[in-house]
Amino acid sequence: MERTIQYLREHRPEHLRWAIDLCRIPSISTKPEHKDDVARAVRWTAEVCDRIGLQTRILETPRHPLVFAEYVAGPDKPTFLVYGHVDVQPTGDLSLWESGPFDPQVKGDWLIARGSSDDKGQVLMYLRAAAAWLATEKKLPLNLKFLIEGEEEIGSPNLEPFVSQNKELLACQSILISDTGMYEDGWPTITYGTRGLCYKEIRLRGPKHDLHSGTHGGAIANPAVVLAQIIASLKDADGRVTIPGFYERVVEPSEEERRAAAALPFDEARYIADLGSPAPYGEAGYSTNERRTSRPTLDVNGIYGGYMAEGANTIIPARAGAKISMRLVPEQDAAAISRAFDDTIRARCPDTVRLEILDHSNCGPYMTPIDSPAMKAAARALREAFGKDTAFIREGGSLPILPMFKHELGADSIMLGFASPNCNAHGPNEKLRIPDADVGAEAIARLFAYLAEAK
Amino acid sequence: MERTIQYLREHRPEHLRWAIDLCRIPSISTKPEHKDDVARAVRWTAEVCDRIGLQTRILETPRHPLVFAEYVAGPDKPTFLVYGHVDVQPTGDLSLWESGPFDPQVKGDWLIARGSSDDKGQVLMYLRAAAAWLATEKKLPLNLKFLIEGEEEIGSPNLEPFVSQNKELLACQSILISDTGMYEDGWPTITYGTRGLCYKEIRLRGPKHDLHSGTHGGAIANPAVVLAQIIASLKDADGRVTIPGFYERVVEPSEEERRAAAALPFDEARYIADLGSPAPYGEAGYSTNERRTSRPTLDVNGIYGGYMAEGANTIIPARAGAKISMRLVPEQDAAAISRAFDDTIRARCPDTVRLEILDHSNCGPYMTPIDSPAMKAAARALREAFGKDTAFIREGGSLPILPMFKHELGADSIMLGFASPNCNAHGPNEKLRIPDADVGAEAIARLFAYLAEAK
Repeated sequence: MERTIQYLREHRPEHLRWAIDLCRIPSISTKPEHKDDVARAVRWTAEVCDRIGLQTRILETPRHPLVFAEYVAGPDKPTFLVYGHVDVQPTGDLSLWESGPFDPQVKGDWLIARGSSDDKGQVLMYLRAAAAWLATEKKLPLNLKFLIEGEEEIGSPNLEPFVSQNKELLACQSILISDTGMYEDGWPTITYGTRGLCYKEIRLRGPKHDLHSGTHGGAIANPAVVLAQIIASLKDADGRVTIPGFYERVVEPSEEERRAAAALPFDEARYIADLGSPAPYGEAGYSTNERRTSRPTLDVNGIYGGYMAEGANTIIPARAGAKISMRLVPEQDAAAISRAFDDTIRARCPDTVRLEILDHSNCGPYMTPIDSPAMKAAARALREAFGKDTAFIREGGSLPILPMFKHELGADSIMLGFASPNCNAHGPNEKLRIPDADVGAEAIARLFAYLAEAK
Repeated sequence: MERTIQYLREHRPEHLRWAIDLCRIPSISTKPEHKDDVARAVRWTAEVCDRIGLQTRILETPRHPLVFAEYVAGPDKPTFLVYGHVDVQPTGDLSLWESGPFDPQVKGDWLIARGSSDDKGQVLMYLRAAAAWLATEKKLPLNLKFLIEGEEEIGSPNLEPFVSQNKELLACQSILISDTGMYEDGWPTITYGTRGLCYKEIRLRGPKHDLHSGTHGGAIANPAVVLAQIIASLKDADGRVTIPGFYERVVEPSEEERRAAAALPFDEARYIADLGSPAPYGEAGYSTNERRTSRPTLDVNGIYGGYMAEGANTIIPARAGAKISMRLVPEQDAAAISRAFDDTIRARCPDTVRLEILDHSNCGPYMTPIDSPAMKAAARALREAFGKDTAFIREGGSLPILPMFKHELGADSIMLGFASPNCNAHGPNEKLRIPDADVGAEAIARLFAYLAEAK
């Protein structure tokens, strides 16, 4: 192990060049004109896998290809699957970038480039660790598979079919994912829960076209008013969602979990000030952190109808609509919540307007056991590498691949996050904190050893 | 009188040419590139005034000029002021027009052109009547003033200052306006009430920019949800506005008025079907026609916030807003309602978001006495010309000039409407029903005589 760690330390400059080279490729998966770049990033990754000694294949999907690579240590060794992605978000407004998004710059501790944290830099940490093992020990201590895709930023449309059709190829004990963040810079962090997402759109139609609000105002239902009434009915005065059965299967955080979460430093006043909101607000009886991680919620993501430009126009809108999403927590069932939402909206919508409900997305919550042997191995590896106990956190966002992996492969995911809280993934000047990537690679090298021994 | 009527009948072809000539001028007041055309329409009108024997002046305002013309019969005669406008609405989508908007076409009973009904054709009816009097009787039986402007379709921004600065010039017993419609084709109609308009915009700000609804959902107030809650609070289950004091000064229609209104033919099912709304809806205890004319109401004219395009975006909106307008009826005070609205919104808006209220417009309701001598003269003139009793109606829309004239000149307005219910003012293929314009001109010729005698 010492030689492997030593190797990683000696090869930091070379491994930083890997990150720079990979981040040079503008592999924006959402943009058709970058299709070849996504394929190039996948190819570049495959070449590294191959070079360090993995059996590597590029597999085509209907849109962007993916890399499958593996090391076979033997049937007596446990098997783990590393998942990651090398496609990236669009750059957004280029004028907000201090340097080109695909012209990686090293400034002090930071590597600045689109994809540096999300997720190229984190994917590379596994390849660095594997390279170090293979260079120093000529082997890996476990069976390791890599599934690196190029469609994460477009919602992984081809991943579920691929996994479903390749269950044997991908069979594993657990999945290792580094696509999340650290609680603070330098503080090793494992995300053990994500919320589900049930995303709907309500569309109301009143008159067949916009009407003069003087001539007709008062005589017919106004779809925008009805919409507001329906939305207002969805939460009570305590900030609780009023959809019948919504909380029925919600698991309260255990006392231990609440204590552990409360022990993490969290400056609520600063958090709210940073968001720019005038005050915290949420479900009565829970802390701000609980509200955004372990409690389900409902938000309007967008609302529209009638005259929306500057100035005034005296119309009764023909249409109004809202995009409404619910974040779900264990053991809420996404399909059941979806049905309950539809039933509630239908029941509350008067017959003075016409209602249509659209489904945008639906994925379940996910929680991984925090006391499994693999999780303990991860916590140990992180502690030894970073010299600090791991923060275990739940994340408010949703990762549909987690319940999908659980469903298709029967495997839980361990999310070791190395992105800085300030990495600005998806925004301008995305960056990776180089010391955390370096130490993270060491942690993963250790993790391989401890997973091999974990029972 | 017989000779005057005869003259009008003989000169119908010539007077139709007047309308065609005036409608050829694309006097779109909203469009700077048509500024000269508005001036041309004003000049054309002034030339007709001059030719038929009125003392005529073109007066400049900061934007578009107006015509002032008068006939002085003598200090022992009553004085009336004709108000109208010769500017027009934009054409809208030209592909919806069967012929050019400014290439007037006569098809059967109809003259098709932008401005034919609103308001050029109706303004000309007064000039036709005056021309007939002056040609046959060599005089008018009353003092008559004309105030024909070129800014009505942009909200008459310079009319109030002009009227305020020229009270003596414009002094009159009542104002005659024909810029409204007939209840049915061929059915003489006087509009005796309009609703006021208090038009607001609420803007709510939450976080300083859109936030990830997974990471932060549940922890802060969502401006779009708060907006919906505020809007929903503005009406109760009976469709009544909940702003304290809103109904305090509302005058219930008299029994006679309700009876008269109920006696007018109105097919509610067909009205609702024509609008395309699934059902009528409004304040409990009032008919559909009352709800849209003699009852105040509140409508959302536009609502916006967050992600409004196709598809889904998981954000908590930084901002949300709504354009909300109230139609007011006598004796509601527009300024008091404006204050009550602001107070109510401020009281109901939680401190978890920041609130801004904008004023878009504010004008009072208007009602003219239906039993004044001038009104009786108008009803008589219409009855004799059309051979049918006048329909007296209230209009749901707002005409800010009516309370303005009342306030500045102390004069009530008599609104004799000759536009067809199907005239499609402001829309494509706007048209004037020629027989109603012809008979309307006769009615106005009679009106001049009866007003001269009215006590």
